[in-house]
Amino acid sequence: MISIARLYNIFVMEQSSYGSAISRRLNTTFAALANPTRRAILARLASGEVSVSELAEPFAMTQPAISRHLRVLERAGLISTASDAQRRPRKLDARPLAEATEWLEAYREYWEASFLRLDGLLGELKAANKKRKRPTARLR
Amino acid sequence: MISIARLYNIFVMEQSSYGSAISRRLNTTFAALANPTRRAILARLASGEVSVSELAEPFAMTQPAISRHLRVLERAGLISTASDAQRRPRKLDARPLAEATEWLEAYREYWEASFLRLDGLLGELKAANKKRKRPTARLR
Repeated sequence: MISIARLYNIFVMEQSSYGSAISRRLNTTFAALANPTRRAILARLASGEVSVSELAEPFAMTQPAISRHLRVLERAGLISTASDAQRRPRKLDARPLAEATEWLEAYREYWEASFLRLDGLLGELKAANKKRKRPTARLR
Repeated sequence: MISIARLYNIFVMEQSSYGSAISRRLNTTFAALANPTRRAILARLASGEVSVSELAEPFAMTQPAISRHLRVLERAGLISTASDAQRRPRKLDARPLAEATEWLEAYREYWEASFLRLDGLLGELKAANKKRKRPTARLR
């Protein structure tokens, strides 16, 4: 069911690579994603380049506070400044998201399997419930 | 190409839901994943239930340090204590990983599209390079 070999590879990779580039990038990517404002900024940028003042607009936050979030996203390589020298809009760089998705994908088989087990369990419970209810139905 | 509607929904959801359950769960899940030791522990648990001392073994870390990481994972709902009352092994709970994967999946079309653009660009550059090199080839 689950690709143990693949997960074990990740385990070994993670352990031997406290300093490895991918492991460090995953640290900063996941840390950057652990905040709702930063996730909202990324979602906004997925539709195209946006200036900092436009990015700040929907939030009840000062521009310095937004700028701090932008710096975290920038350091994680998730956004960069687009080429328009005057507006200096920000744009989404999706490569770290691809790496994070790949890391999580190794667990897909695991959680799909556990949901299937849950589904199976629910099915069994429903069937058992029906059996129990049958006499009552006959009495109607 | 990119499902803007879906991303916009996420954007609106995130904004209106500083307190929403999913948004808070994503905060704790991503924060828990932002550490190589915790990711290694999850990978180890994907192969089955493991006792705390076995979990600590491969790390150059004291057991209290490992216990702190386990508490972070536990608070994020990523692990729990299995039913064996004596060994109290930990087991993986994959539901938060499923939610995090779903959040990241909204960006898949985005980064797949940008990698395709990069591929296209590389193709064009190679083609342009070949054209430029043709005269040199004739001189050989």
